[in-house]
Amino acid sequence: MTTSPLLANLIEALRCLPGVGGKSAQRMAFHLLERDRDRGLKLADALREAMQRIGQCQRCRNFSEEALCAICGGASRDRQLLCVVESPVDLAAIEQATGYRGQYFVLHGRLSPLDGLGPEELGLPLLVQRLGEGEVEELIIATNPTVEGEATAHYLAQLARAGGIRPTRLAHGVPLGGELEFVDRGTLAHAFGGRQLL
Amino acid sequence: MTTSPLLANLIEALRCLPGVGGKSAQRMAFHLLERDRDRGLKLADALREAMQRIGQCQRCRNFSEEALCAICGGASRDRQLLCVVESPVDLAAIEQATGYRGQYFVLHGRLSPLDGLGPEELGLPLLVQRLGEGEVEELIIATNPTVEGEATAHYLAQLARAGGIRPTRLAHGVPLGGELEFVDRGTLAHAFGGRQLL
Repeated sequence: MTTSPLLANLIEALRCLPGVGGKSAQRMAFHLLERDRDRGLKLADALREAMQRIGQCQRCRNFSEEALCAICGGASRDRQLLCVVESPVDLAAIEQATGYRGQYFVLHGRLSPLDGLGPEELGLPLLVQRLGEGEVEELIIATNPTVEGEATAHYLAQLARAGGIRPTRLAHGVPLGGELEFVDRGTLAHAFGGRQLL
Repeated sequence: MTTSPLLANLIEALRCLPGVGGKSAQRMAFHLLERDRDRGLKLADALREAMQRIGQCQRCRNFSEEALCAICGGASRDRQLLCVVESPVDLAAIEQATGYRGQYFVLHGRLSPLDGLGPEELGLPLLVQRLGEGEVEELIIATNPTVEGEATAHYLAQLARAGGIRPTRLAHGVPLGGELEFVDRGTLAHAFGGRQLL
């Protein structure tokens, strides 16, 4: 298909990116070679640095190249609020969308015994230790509203209650801007049952 | 948005890829960090190698890390046929779609005086030298059917004729699988005028 082994190798390697198939990979490789070699080299450096140096924050398990991430290491965030998320992407989404000023804890998964994901793998001993320090007053459980996410939320709520901490969960309901007609039954029933006084 | 400078740097660097915006770049970065660090490192290596080592074949100007690309260096391709394309992508498309067994010449552009692209920039002295070697019998002009591509084709055809070589052009017409109703006027008129005996 291509006459250069290095180019074939690059096209194949680009396919590790999510959403990138053979055609897109080829387009990307040709684009970089023809027009943007400098930025291609910068991308190579950024990839290497990130893959090798980014680990987990010792306190919240979020991605960080330092022992403590900027949120845990800084003094500006409220230590009485702790928000538990399944993954760093969820953390980023909450940071971008809300004005939340508390701290986080990243599970890197959800309880799923069949996949070998138990409390140990999710770092729950670290979470329990953190809850035992006495600073946290509210545990905001922001796992995904899937079956496994809900199961994980129940488990976390028990942990919180055992430590005398108030567990809360993100509100479920009709999405803003959505039309009732197109909301799925489960969500609609939940939103109806959980109606609030105006 | 993210708490890790290396991660922010990676997300920004990924945006050099065509078709990748902020959201996709973020998804790619998180995906590699969470699930595929090995392939991320391989991609970094492949990028660096390709950006630094891939140059142009001395004979056909296609991408190659050797002085001669596999097509020019090998003995298996017909040296009497020479196909001129605007870019290596076009070469790859022809290689993938057709059974063409001749050789190529890559312009890396098209004649466009306003953009400072003249015969020198397109490597035409190299092409003239090649045509003068006496091996080539047919010059297949496969520039794009755009205004500039057509102008380039005319220029190339003159070069070929001056050297006693037969210039040919890819056939224009109704695309296979298309419906006449949706073919643009220019193409339809061209296809009608160029109708062939069955």
